[in-house]
Amino acid sequence: MNFKEHLDKRVSRIEAVLAKYLPQEGGPAGVVLEAMNYSVNAGGKRLRPMLMQEAFVLCGGSGELVEPFMAALEMIHTYSLVHDDLPAMDNDEYRRGRKTTHVVYGETMAILAGDALLNYAFETACRAFAMKPGCAQTERAIGVLAEKAGIFGMIGGQTADILAENAEGAADMPQLLFIHEKKTAALIQAALMIGAILAGAEQEVVDLLEKVGYDVGVAFQIQDDILDVTGEMAELGKPIGSDEKNHKTTYVTLAGVDEAKKEVERLSNEAVSILEAFETRNEFLEELIRELITRRK
Amino acid sequence: MNFKEHLDKRVSRIEAVLAKYLPQEGGPAGVVLEAMNYSVNAGGKRLRPMLMQEAFVLCGGSGELVEPFMAALEMIHTYSLVHDDLPAMDNDEYRRGRKTTHVVYGETMAILAGDALLNYAFETACRAFAMKPGCAQTERAIGVLAEKAGIFGMIGGQTADILAENAEGAADMPQLLFIHEKKTAALIQAALMIGAILAGAEQEVVDLLEKVGYDVGVAFQIQDDILDVTGEMAELGKPIGSDEKNHKTTYVTLAGVDEAKKEVERLSNEAVSILEAFETRNEFLEELIRELITRRK
Repeated sequence: MNFKEHLDKRVSRIEAVLAKYLPQEGGPAGVVLEAMNYSVNAGGKRLRPMLMQEAFVLCGGSGELVEPFMAALEMIHTYSLVHDDLPAMDNDEYRRGRKTTHVVYGETMAILAGDALLNYAFETACRAFAMKPGCAQTERAIGVLAEKAGIFGMIGGQTADILAENAEGAADMPQLLFIHEKKTAALIQAALMIGAILAGAEQEVVDLLEKVGYDVGVAFQIQDDILDVTGEMAELGKPIGSDEKNHKTTYVTLAGVDEAKKEVERLSNEAVSILEAFETRNEFLEELIRELITRRK
Repeated sequence: MNFKEHLDKRVSRIEAVLAKYLPQEGGPAGVVLEAMNYSVNAGGKRLRPMLMQEAFVLCGGSGELVEPFMAALEMIHTYSLVHDDLPAMDNDEYRRGRKTTHVVYGETMAILAGDALLNYAFETACRAFAMKPGCAQTERAIGVLAEKAGIFGMIGGQTADILAENAEGAADMPQLLFIHEKKTAALIQAALMIGAILAGAEQEVVDLLEKVGYDVGVAFQIQDDILDVTGEMAELGKPIGSDEKNHKTTYVTLAGVDEAKKEVERLSNEAVSILEAFETRNEFLEELIRELITRRK
């Protein structure tokens, strides 16, 4: 199998896990369930559950304990997109080539669907308790999930991002890297750390994967900024140059496309170097990280 | 001590618990932390953490394990109010006599502060794991918290409420009771059930307290609807008749004030009867529930 076939196989498995853990529609509040499922089923790369699964395998994990966490993390990622797209936030009408949740279901339902996805993420993660009661790893994994998604993680990054956009002057590089670390890397870190924790990895390994998560997350975000100026609508699923339209400061506007590309490569190489030093290897994970620097969408 | 003195003492203790668990302000995302704290510190009756604490005591609990859950539940209650007040939802400018979060911090920050409170609630509840690792009760308590706050609990009720408001005809009584059960009673049930679970109560006791929570929650909501037509701005902290202004169907519009008052009394009596049949008693809890039928704000 080549990389693409391995990738497709994993995406299929993740879609099956998501289908298993997403709520059944129907009932008096059925519209919000539809809006939740619409949002998650909009597709995307499923990068976060995939990284979680690969870190789990890398650290010798087996069994289904990781599955509710894979679904939970994708729900948290999705709710953040649903709320980010709202008129009071980025006011985006399209994402991944489809109409955003608030365009289809209205603003009220999009707010509720986002809330519902965030809440259901924890409800879903809690199912792991029934699978293995009194498991210290599961307890720790939920703690990491909450921390990396919250005010000292993703939400903190979203806030700093919005404050920077509303500020008089442009953000500087330290501010920008804070935003990338929190807004994007935090959930990538959560993915890798939770995979390792649930596999029973030592704290030292979890810390190394947190570093890998930083590198991959920041590289991923800079690549996103590069694609915003060089990509194509059909590939990206959203209008080109939307950052520029919003007068957004990015790594590209601060350092230029060439420097940005170099930094993505540097971060990706650093991440892979850490992984190559592990006693066991996961070649697919290494390849996946390398692919991030050449992705076109 | 009379009831009022007991009540004040408990509120003071709850305020101390909240202060202990709310985030410290400052840092690049400090505004969202301020907005979170502003929202929680707007006051209110602290009914949910109080009911949790009293159920904990009733079931023989002692120690601090219940504290992170008391704070977490109040955070969830608060986030629901912050999002409910948004322009795209009820568009309320005042609550408890103070300007609502989006009026003070803007709509974007109010959405994020609500998200942050919901997420931080789970982050806070997870602190109980460090207090007592591998504790089956804590694991179960987090599961109940997530379930009662989510799409099969509070968010489900909010959704049904909004759908009923936007519908052509008025809601009927079964729809209205569904909304009250989910939107209001679910978090009251969570309060009582989690208090009992953390104290190590049997499932049978937890089930009885879930029933008490239904009675108290629905009674509380009907009383709210009664106060909307009979209360005074100064006491209620929000404009009188706002339900009528919004053409909202309530127990009062469906059955009249007198029938509504009778139903509040019936539900309260039923709740107290269940508690009176317990081997141990918590007189403050019983009195607190009785007070709900005579409260003026």
